[in-house]
Amino acid sequence: MTTQTKPVLHGYFRSSCSWRVRIAFALKGIEYDQVPVNLIKDGGQQSHSDAASPMIKLTDQYKALNPMQQVPAVNIDGITLSQSLAIIQYLEETRPGRRLLPVDPKKRAQARMISDIIASGIQPLQNLSVIQKIGAEKLQWSQHFITKGFEALEPILKQTAGTYCVGDEISMADICLVPQVYNAERFKVDLSKFPTIKRLNETLLKLEEFKVSHPSCQPDTPPDLQA
Amino acid sequence: MTTQTKPVLHGYFRSSCSWRVRIAFALKGIEYDQVPVNLIKDGGQQSHSDAASPMIKLTDQYKALNPMQQVPAVNIDGITLSQSLAIIQYLEETRPGRRLLPVDPKKRAQARMISDIIASGIQPLQNLSVIQKIGAEKLQWSQHFITKGFEALEPILKQTAGTYCVGDEISMADICLVPQVYNAERFKVDLSKFPTIKRLNETLLKLEEFKVSHPSCQPDTPPDLQA
Repeated sequence: MTTQTKPVLHGYFRSSCSWRVRIAFALKGIEYDQVPVNLIKDGGQQSHSDAASPMIKLTDQYKALNPMQQVPAVNIDGITLSQSLAIIQYLEETRPGRRLLPVDPKKRAQARMISDIIASGIQPLQNLSVIQKIGAEKLQWSQHFITKGFEALEPILKQTAGTYCVGDEISMADICLVPQVYNAERFKVDLSKFPTIKRLNETLLKLEEFKVSHPSCQPDTPPDLQA
Repeated sequence: MTTQTKPVLHGYFRSSCSWRVRIAFALKGIEYDQVPVNLIKDGGQQSHSDAASPMIKLTDQYKALNPMQQVPAVNIDGITLSQSLAIIQYLEETRPGRRLLPVDPKKRAQARMISDIIASGIQPLQNLSVIQKIGAEKLQWSQHFITKGFEALEPILKQTAGTYCVGDEISMADICLVPQVYNAERFKVDLSKFPTIKRLNETLLKLEEFKVSHPSCQPDTPPDLQA
């Protein structure tokens, strides 16, 4: 693998983990190329691709790039990284610009804790391979685990949040929260019980970096889902 | 909450995420107190408690401490942290002693990637609340997702590993690997296809820090499971 000047994000418009990385790139002001990856094995999404944005199927080539066969994966500085939080923290530790973690160690820990509650405690249970295995009951299953996770997040955020998830600075926690709320809405989770989560999500969605990275305006967003 | 001199780990002997934190404490040479938490709602494990190591049930008191109702949770420096990787990285950033992440940014990223493959990609699918919901098919379910995860980890580790998961220095990746292999063995996963994982696990299990933190010798380990 050779060192590239522009990072390449292999992702999918609707993947919440891909969105996390897109937000981080936007907050850091990093230009990158996108290669859409089609994770749906029956190729159902394939028809949405067009000449301007070639979409790759889940090929052996992609499996070599990311053996977990998930998105995102990023080619950067000559290496390939998967796992969104590892990618985001690599950007934080190697790129200047806006901080993605607070300076204070306790606040950093809280930002990581909130990120991990989402990235390890909630999102993995709505991952494509899990949902496919659950089958017909996937809506109920997803609602159960998102609601359970939000019931934990709400009191934690009530303690840590200022304008954003941890105090008044944007952090990785915010980067994880917004795509998870998007997933919650897709799975029709009742958000009325979570006023802090709702308030933070609404505040964050007004920011340019969250807008340009939104699933509704990516190269592989199907026309009927475009904003 | 007041600042404490010794951190308090709320955990469970067999929880792989609790074991991660115990390894990190051992590698850093940090003394801590343990409070066993019984996550089994029917109290089946309760009989194993004894006067010397009081085990707390999943009470409202613990829910206030960790709204996710999972272990581990750590009281440290006046705050409560859940999520093992957030705890481990807090120790890394605030305590001297053995490094838990490499100095080189690319190797740090690889250590975090491997940790996250386990912590977000594999372990959450064997979490108690998930397994309980899956019911009778839990063995097959767990074997499926651990095998899938290990099929991804094996080629990645083949590239990154030296003596340990990332080069020749112990890192958070090793801290995550060993407890996940322990889980794999509990769920009778065939490990013969994963020679790198097996080799790393065997090397790490010989180290004192992995021995003293092992599920077989914790305050709440039932007598019949003690080493």
